[in-house]
Amino acid sequence: MMRQYTPVNMKHVRLTSGLLAERQKLNTEITVPHIYHELDTTGRIDSLYCRWKPGDPNKPHPFWDSDIGKMIEAISYSLITNPSEDLEEKVDRIVDMLEQEQFPDGYLNTYFKTCEIKNRFTNLYYMHELYCAGHLIEGAVAYFEATGKRKFLDIMCRYVDLIDDTFGSEPGKKRGYCGHPEIELALVRLYGVTQNEKHLNLSKYFIDERGTQPYFFEQESLAYGVDTTKTANQKRHLKYYLKSRGPYAEYQSHLPVREQKEPVGHAVRAMYLYSGMSDIADAYDDVALYNACKTIWDAMANTQYAIIGGIGPSSDGERFTFAYDIPNEYTYNESCASVALAMWANRMVQFDCDSRYPDILEQTLYNVILASVDVLGNKFFYANYLSALPERFEHASAAVIDKMKAERQEWFDVACCPPNISRLMGSLGSYMYSVNETGLFMHLYAGCDAELRVKDTPVKLTVTTDYPWEGSVRIEVGASGGEVFTVGLRIPGWCRNWEVTVNGSDVPYEIRKGYCLIRRIWGNDTIELEFSMPVMQIEARPEVREACGRVALQRGPVIYCIEEADNGKDINNLCIPGECTFSESRGIELVDPRAVVLQFSGFKRNPGGWQDGLYREVRSTLEPAAIKAIPYYLWGNRGFGRMLVWMLRT
Amino acid sequence: MMRQYTPVNMKHVRLTSGLLAERQKLNTEITVPHIYHELDTTGRIDSLYCRWKPGDPNKPHPFWDSDIGKMIEAISYSLITNPSEDLEEKVDRIVDMLEQEQFPDGYLNTYFKTCEIKNRFTNLYYMHELYCAGHLIEGAVAYFEATGKRKFLDIMCRYVDLIDDTFGSEPGKKRGYCGHPEIELALVRLYGVTQNEKHLNLSKYFIDERGTQPYFFEQESLAYGVDTTKTANQKRHLKYYLKSRGPYAEYQSHLPVREQKEPVGHAVRAMYLYSGMSDIADAYDDVALYNACKTIWDAMANTQYAIIGGIGPSSDGERFTFAYDIPNEYTYNESCASVALAMWANRMVQFDCDSRYPDILEQTLYNVILASVDVLGNKFFYANYLSALPERFEHASAAVIDKMKAERQEWFDVACCPPNISRLMGSLGSYMYSVNETGLFMHLYAGCDAELRVKDTPVKLTVTTDYPWEGSVRIEVGASGGEVFTVGLRIPGWCRNWEVTVNGSDVPYEIRKGYCLIRRIWGNDTIELEFSMPVMQIEARPEVREACGRVALQRGPVIYCIEEADNGKDINNLCIPGECTFSESRGIELVDPRAVVLQFSGFKRNPGGWQDGLYREVRSTLEPAAIKAIPYYLWGNRGFGRMLVWMLRT
Repeated sequence: MMRQYTPVNMKHVRLTSGLLAERQKLNTEITVPHIYHELDTTGRIDSLYCRWKPGDPNKPHPFWDSDIGKMIEAISYSLITNPSEDLEEKVDRIVDMLEQEQFPDGYLNTYFKTCEIKNRFTNLYYMHELYCAGHLIEGAVAYFEATGKRKFLDIMCRYVDLIDDTFGSEPGKKRGYCGHPEIELALVRLYGVTQNEKHLNLSKYFIDERGTQPYFFEQESLAYGVDTTKTANQKRHLKYYLKSRGPYAEYQSHLPVREQKEPVGHAVRAMYLYSGMSDIADAYDDVALYNACKTIWDAMANTQYAIIGGIGPSSDGERFTFAYDIPNEYTYNESCASVALAMWANRMVQFDCDSRYPDILEQTLYNVILASVDVLGNKFFYANYLSALPERFEHASAAVIDKMKAERQEWFDVACCPPNISRLMGSLGSYMYSVNETGLFMHLYAGCDAELRVKDTPVKLTVTTDYPWEGSVRIEVGASGGEVFTVGLRIPGWCRNWEVTVNGSDVPYEIRKGYCLIRRIWGNDTIELEFSMPVMQIEARPEVREACGRVALQRGPVIYCIEEADNGKDINNLCIPGECTFSESRGIELVDPRAVVLQFSGFKRNPGGWQDGLYREVRSTLEPAAIKAIPYYLWGNRGFGRMLVWMLRT
Repeated sequence: MMRQYTPVNMKHVRLTSGLLAERQKLNTEITVPHIYHELDTTGRIDSLYCRWKPGDPNKPHPFWDSDIGKMIEAISYSLITNPSEDLEEKVDRIVDMLEQEQFPDGYLNTYFKTCEIKNRFTNLYYMHELYCAGHLIEGAVAYFEATGKRKFLDIMCRYVDLIDDTFGSEPGKKRGYCGHPEIELALVRLYGVTQNEKHLNLSKYFIDERGTQPYFFEQESLAYGVDTTKTANQKRHLKYYLKSRGPYAEYQSHLPVREQKEPVGHAVRAMYLYSGMSDIADAYDDVALYNACKTIWDAMANTQYAIIGGIGPSSDGERFTFAYDIPNEYTYNESCASVALAMWANRMVQFDCDSRYPDILEQTLYNVILASVDVLGNKFFYANYLSALPERFEHASAAVIDKMKAERQEWFDVACCPPNISRLMGSLGSYMYSVNETGLFMHLYAGCDAELRVKDTPVKLTVTTDYPWEGSVRIEVGASGGEVFTVGLRIPGWCRNWEVTVNGSDVPYEIRKGYCLIRRIWGNDTIELEFSMPVMQIEARPEVREACGRVALQRGPVIYCIEEADNGKDINNLCIPGECTFSESRGIELVDPRAVVLQFSGFKRNPGGWQDGLYREVRSTLEPAAIKAIPYYLWGNRGFGRMLVWMLRT
């Protein structure tokens, strides 16, 4: 086992107050029931009866089982924090339906059973079969952990037995893997509760096989009569064939995974795969695999990461593109990709307590992820823009579908994002702390109560803070006393000045990889952290072409934006001076009573003096303008208008 | 007849020297033979034998007849300026093939004859059948005018008879029109040589019927079993269904044409339709139709027109979008759309000698249209960007096809642009002058000899100029003497200071709608025009969001750009100061020996001091930078790199 740290499970971490607690409560009370309602009314739950016939409404979609799996996972987390007989009964009923649905040999896939059972396991490239299995497994594990009920887990173990009998390097098995990674990390989670080595080995097999030659997807296509080695067929049959990196890069299958050096292809698939790779690296002490993860992480963080915590800028393929390609308006940044990025970050920091991972976790959490749900809890972004112009979508063709809109939607035909966001919000507790033999390590700051164990010592933590609005964090440590251990406190990457005291006094500490490490005998002690949190004007590297001549505003981990609701339609002509004083106030009416709002004096191009025509010799001047900026994650809660993160500089 | 002016046919205007003459020569010598070669080697010419069978290579495409038609049109123009037995024989052979191909009832369509003859005239929405007929008609007219040979013209008249028997408002006829306008203007050209009223009436019918209710396209779909009034079917069967304007706006069929007020939908279709509308307005003294044309023109010029003379910013549907949506990098601006815009402008100015029309004609000609061919004459742009980043296309999926690339291509699967550009370059002479009872009117300036008639007076013009590089234009007028008439000289919209003399002396003149009108007795006289042509920094209206904080450079009608070949990769960080002196020089080695190149002192963001990471608190500074700008139309002739029209301002 290469991981030096263990994440503290959400069962032991209760968010008590502040922004994350409020958002988790909203998730439990509104988002989770909303998702159940949508799955029910769109036919996804009844689809498990496999009664659909041609001509009926609500034809099952190949992904629908994944929606069921993620919803059960989200419900399971909500059951831990807020037990609900009603929700538990609903899940039990679904599990009974799945039991009924399962074939005697263990096979379980609603779409294939209903629509094309003869084709099961013949088109892994495109049909998401093992991806659906993965999400059902994650749901089964979470439900077992939340309730102790084994039925769903047993169903999935039977299915995994079949998958294991079907896929592998042994003679007679298919040397296959799924076009959409997911089952890899799910099998490791399954192993976590079953301790069945077969589950771990199967995950390792999928990871090892991926991207090897001859390509499985080629062989699979040949079996149904299409030779995808021919260029013409590639374009026709491989929807997101990427010429620059070969036919299978969209699905991270162009190279064996240990040879991959940068994030490529579909961003959600990428994050799930890298998460699974890091799990297998840990389980098998696989240094090459861990190194691949680190290399890819750095390439992502240093070249393909939007300041709001978004990844995957291309809507064509929902994917990574190339270094420094971080557009503002014509971007994508799928909510699911940021959820999966958080999952990967949480896996990486367990190898190496380096703030590079939680810095990005925190940035994506307080920006894209919080933005992806509205303040009422029942509308969602799929794409997350750095500059929004709703007219673009009003005048788009039918090819531009709801998920691309710069306007939150109640639901989507492809509904991956809502339950994905929900399962993350429900399990936020699991992202906050790690422990190991030497101590405990705090990655995120939020009002909460936690009960940990450092070696055999129980430690209680009570954290009081108004983070991310204020930089003061008070941590009451309750240990039985007498034990020496380390408390590691992450110093956020955005923070230039900070102070720490224990019981009101300075203490010795060591800084290592962005953490302040305080090693001492801990009893009932109070740590007080003070992170200076001024408004900062941020620039992007010169290579980020759409940020040239522009700055973004950041305060703590929160990125700001200017929105039409506060500044009118003409936000693209607002300029911020290099020397600028920001006035801070709290609250946006009907949206968020506590958020810090920024006001400042900037400039605006004088719009006057234009007659007909679009172009003229320059004669516009700048005039003073009062500008208001709000946290990015709150945009679009007062109607949808224009929004901009990267503002012009004077 | 509402048109007060008549364009002078290219037969009477010979480009003799300067940029346009050189480009026309390149078109004749290189582009036209290249197009023939490509049509031949891609199977388009042999397709006329209609021998293709499933399994054979080179399946005929529904548009291929249009390529044949446009090529014959382009060859015809080249035959006028440069007779060629070889090319004439090639066309004669094609005409023989078309004669063989034609059905006894007159039907003529290579794709349908070969691939699905039973379906002829059943899917006008999508299959371009009358569009192909239109381009064949234009080719037949041009070939007749160039050679006097009637065979092709007769073939097309027989086909038009069938079309006229098939479509119309009379009982038993289909109330149809084509998804892709083109035949409307072609029929008016046909009428121009046949004087057969049926041809004119049929065009009027197509124009009048378009967009009326019940929608023909709806009826047509019902006939093959699809009810497109149902939303789900709209999305599936109407590829570019535009929610904001109803199902048929992409094809300008959402409203009766006289009720249309702004350019919508596919830009090439729009321009062909509006050209045909203006022709019919003229032929039938149809004020409502003319007013619709004027209203749409103004909406286009004032809200949806890129400074390079490009229109139709969306690659999704190759179409207009909404007011002020003029993106730089994520744009389209199809070459064909600018060609068709030139055609429309040339029709509009014949109603009303107002420089608003030739101003745009000139801007699109010297920028997008010249840019759309390389300096060797055999590579073409389909899309025309205001900011180019070749990496975008290297890393695109197969969905991003050759025609979208920021790199000229030798040919395209959908090959509308090369022959379209070629027919415009070949017929440039027809765009330069108009005459009427009162005088002659010069819209464009280029070295040329022309022989016109003003009423019954023959007038020779010899124009000597280095336009667009120098603003001096010398016009020798040779008239028999004794006749009073007006010479109208367009004062370009970009020009602030100009002077005119006749025989070296000031003369009285009147300014009307952008033209300097000199009315006098003309004999052998010399007009000298001097247009002051400084480099101008241009701003766009504040509503053009991607030009905020930016300027473009213009000198005369030529828009400039900064290119990687001169300025390195980091062009997005270059800034131009408000006060700037431009040093002008002539020539770009191996590209253009005469083009004016601009050099100036600007600034650049200092790229130094960055460690890992994409974002930091602002600390970059500007440093002086020598910047070189070249004419936009010459970009991409020294390898393909980055290119930018709208530069940052300091």
